[in-house]
Amino acid sequence: MSGPQERQAASTLQLCRLMRPDDSNLAGNVHGGIILKMIEEAGCIIGTRHCNVQNGDRCLAALVRVEKTEFLSPMFIGEVAHVTAEITFTSKHSLEVQVKVIGENVLTGAKKLASKAALWYVPCSLKNVEKIMEVPPIKYASAEQEEEGRKRYEAQKMERMETKARIEEAVAPPANPEQHTVGFSQSSLIHLVGPSDCTLHDYVHGGATMKLMDEVAGIVAARHCNTNIVTASVDAINFHRKIKKGCVLTVTGRLTFISNKSMEIEVMVDASSMVEAEMRKYRAVTAFFTYISLDKDNKPLPVPSLKIESEDEQRRFDEGKARYLQNKAKRLSNNQGQQ
Amino acid sequence: MSGPQERQAASTLQLCRLMRPDDSNLAGNVHGGIILKMIEEAGCIIGTRHCNVQNGDRCLAALVRVEKTEFLSPMFIGEVAHVTAEITFTSKHSLEVQVKVIGENVLTGAKKLASKAALWYVPCSLKNVEKIMEVPPIKYASAEQEEEGRKRYEAQKMERMETKARIEEAVAPPANPEQHTVGFSQSSLIHLVGPSDCTLHDYVHGGATMKLMDEVAGIVAARHCNTNIVTASVDAINFHRKIKKGCVLTVTGRLTFISNKSMEIEVMVDASSMVEAEMRKYRAVTAFFTYISLDKDNKPLPVPSLKIESEDEQRRFDEGKARYLQNKAKRLSNNQGQQ
Amino acid sequence: MSGPQERQAASTLQLCRLMRPDDSNLAGNVHGGIILKMIEEAGCIIGTRHCNVQNGDRCLAALVRVEKTEFLSPMFIGEVAHVTAEITFTSKHSLEVQVKVIGENVLTGAKKLASKAALWYVPCSLKNVEKIMEVPPIKYASAEQEEEGRKRYEAQKMERMETKARIEEAVAPPANPEQHTVGFSQSSLIHLVGPSDCTLHDYVHGGATMKLMDEVAGIVAARHCNTNIVTASVDAINFHRKIKKGCVLTVTGRLTFISNKSMEIEVMVDASSMVEAEMRKYRAVTAFFTYISLDKDNKPLPVPSLKIESEDEQRRFDEGKARYLQNKAKRLSNNQGQQ
Repeated sequence: MSGPQERQAASTLQLCRLMRPDDSNLAGNVHGGIILKMIEEAGCIIGTRHCNVQNGDRCLAALVRVEKTEFLSPMFIGEVAHVTAEITFTSKHSLEVQVKVIGENVLTGAKKLASKAALWYVPCSLKNVEKIMEVPPIKYASAEQEEEGRKRYEAQKMERMETKARIEEAVAPPANPEQHTVGFSQSSLIHLVGPSDCTLHDYVHGGATMKLMDEVAGIVAARHCNTNIVTASVDAINFHRKIKKGCVLTVTGRLTFISNKSMEIEVMVDASSMVEAEMRKYRAVTAFFTYISLDKDNKPLPVPSLKIESEDEQRRFDEGKARYLQNKAKRLSNNQGQQ
Repeated sequence: MSGPQERQAASTLQLCRLMRPDDSNLAGNVHGGIILKMIEEAGCIIGTRHCNVQNGDRCLAALVRVEKTEFLSPMFIGEVAHVTAEITFTSKHSLEVQVKVIGENVLTGAKKLASKAALWYVPCSLKNVEKIMEVPPIKYASAEQEEEGRKRYEAQKMERMETKARIEEAVAPPANPEQHTVGFSQSSLIHLVGPSDCTLHDYVHGGATMKLMDEVAGIVAARHCNTNIVTASVDAINFHRKIKKGCVLTVTGRLTFISNKSMEIEVMVDASSMVEAEMRKYRAVTAFFTYISLDKDNKPLPVPSLKIESEDEQRRFDEGKARYLQNKAKRLSNNQGQQ
Repeated sequence: MSGPQERQAASTLQLCRLMRPDDSNLAGNVHGGIILKMIEEAGCIIGTRHCNVQNGDRCLAALVRVEKTEFLSPMFIGEVAHVTAEITFTSKHSLEVQVKVIGENVLTGAKKLASKAALWYVPCSLKNVEKIMEVPPIKYASAEQEEEGRKRYEAQKMERMETKARIEEAVAPPANPEQHTVGFSQSSLIHLVGPSDCTLHDYVHGGATMKLMDEVAGIVAARHCNTNIVTASVDAINFHRKIKKGCVLTVTGRLTFISNKSMEIEVMVDASSMVEAEMRKYRAVTAFFTYISLDKDNKPLPVPSLKIESEDEQRRFDEGKARYLQNKAKRLSNNQGQQ
């Protein structure tokens, strides 16, 4: 392989995988968490590869943020997911990877855009995981392209600063909660971090965490409406703190807001070491998942409304509604912008 | 294959598998739950095969009870587990399978008995899972052997009658529990039953349930003593009700009793359907797991004592102590009997 | 996408995946079975896609043969495997896929050819798995290319005819076999075919079978020489009969031949239904795996010689030796041909 061509090849990455029964729910819909995990694997590979083309410590790309991700069309068992990743911006210490997931039905040949995502990584030295390495710059097709990338970079930087993890304790639900209350569908899982969840420096892959988060959010949504439910979107996720092998993760999901046809679920990930003396639990990640309820023909169904029982629940509902309206407005203006 | 030889072959079964990183904890010890799962897989295959040698509906062997199981020596990553299963008794509608697990270090050639277990199955028709089929009789080597099997059968039958599942609600732990209390280490996980957890008729394999139970018990034990912990034994488990694909399992573990060098953890499995209207949660399985804490040389360590905070906790502690003393007495008398 | 470009895109496929701890042995070497499984997944996707570009029944590409496959350089945890598949020949009812696996160390940027393989598929209708569909022809770059493909096609067809599966029973090893005999290292595993092993029409993926075969062969090899062992090559494998979901597979491996630095292990896969009345066991696949023993620096070690104990073992040893000498001669002539 010649030099320049090699560079070209290094800046994009293709990954594909057949969707299996274990990747999907009873109705055959592939879990959003499976797609998020593939997206992150692609991002991690291309990011790590890029940051190691230079001399100096070997390093791994660690996920620090995923931008709002939408699931545009459902995927099913037996389809092939094609994941394409590309590095689209580099700052001194971070890089942006844009990822596209195409679902292919190999029987009919039909293809559809299943999801698009943008992820931010920072390179951590393998010798000392706290040491952030420098990112080699990429070449842009145009000055305009670089300028747009810089805007995205500044925007996400500001947001990451603002959203310091709210370490609000997830309150245990009441003993016999009434149906359609927040307490009724609130769910928690614990997961012992194993070797397969981890990178080479024994920290959890962001994708593994997102898969668990989607699993809990899906159970919350199904408990609320007792129907086939699918992930519609995930709000931007910031990964505040790394999670080490051997930790126990407690992943809790609760309903925050409900519109006519969607549910917003807040998912919190708390990590604690089982063996270290201090044993302090810390909030590692928080995110908002939006789910929709589907009938047998994959058409959206109305969602039962949420019975609010406390001031905190009302506050979170109002905040969720604000996010919902903001997203709706953004979607409308984007659509107009494209016309 | 000639008739008699085939019969011979069908009544025992050999299974072996390499222990992988994901099968074990950070210290390299294979999880007891992994071994329980292999034991049950062997039992299910040999039981199902035996019950289908006759005419009539095709059927699957469903696990109804596992006798007390001890883990005699730890297994490690890279070792090969050899599981041997044999049908040792048949009643009209149930059969007993005895299983032995040998751990082999393929590098040194060393072998050790890792575990022994006895499981009871009933054959359920594939057409109608509520229909229990008849079990073809086996031939015994001697009248004495048959008689001993009958005694084990009567004993377990009586115990199964007695232990109707106590559907006592697992109380949520207090908000800021003090270390070494029951509330501090109490843990719950939820698990959405997927296709790989299930048999051909879409009910959960007993082994899959036991693996989850061991996972929770291990987290409780590690939270209590912050050391490397391993499963020492599991009391008899009765599987009162079947669990269907698509259910959500809530598996909760809490400390009941602590001796000098062991912890007893009660694990409860509650199942609830996500899609069926009624949504009733039911207690599917309960069991007591005993864990020990190990130092770096795999020697048992003393366990921090348990701070009792309520009358219920004291009652459970006393009940656990009674079980502990009873098991100790039984072990002593067995050892004397063998001499 | 426009027509011609789409055709172009459809005839090759890229798949990549990060190698994880569970993919490898204790020394960090990725199991040959993992690589074979990825190769087959790529072949199945591209084959199925190609056969469905035409009208008529939807169909799946079923693996019928894998040509001799060599593992040219070892892969390790943390590396990325890039699998590229291309359809290189089509007959009326079958197609050949050539697959290349490149291992990439994303930290150093180093790339190496890990393996090359050629697989033969036939398209089976989804409506009736016994119905073999027609394969749409591909366009060849040159008449010469087509001619070479036809030669490979004729050669494998003849071989498939010849090697009717010898259903010679794998004899149980003696009770206390002496070290370095065939009986000492002979190993069996049984596996209950689950949903994740299967294709859309509920038959086992060839790749899933090959992974199990490699697992058994690896245990045989490790038992014989008690060192770190890796797959060096696999002789051509013919898949005589399909294996259905719910079957029990018995996979047995035994040493046949040993050269200075390699072991040949015969692996037999027998399938039997647990529930169907007839219960006949049948030999589904047979293959020869060659393993080598490595020291800590991944240099080949001498292999302990094999103690032959019966005429059958001697016959198999001689046959193995003939295969070994033939392969060696072929390799030599190929190398000369390339110079």
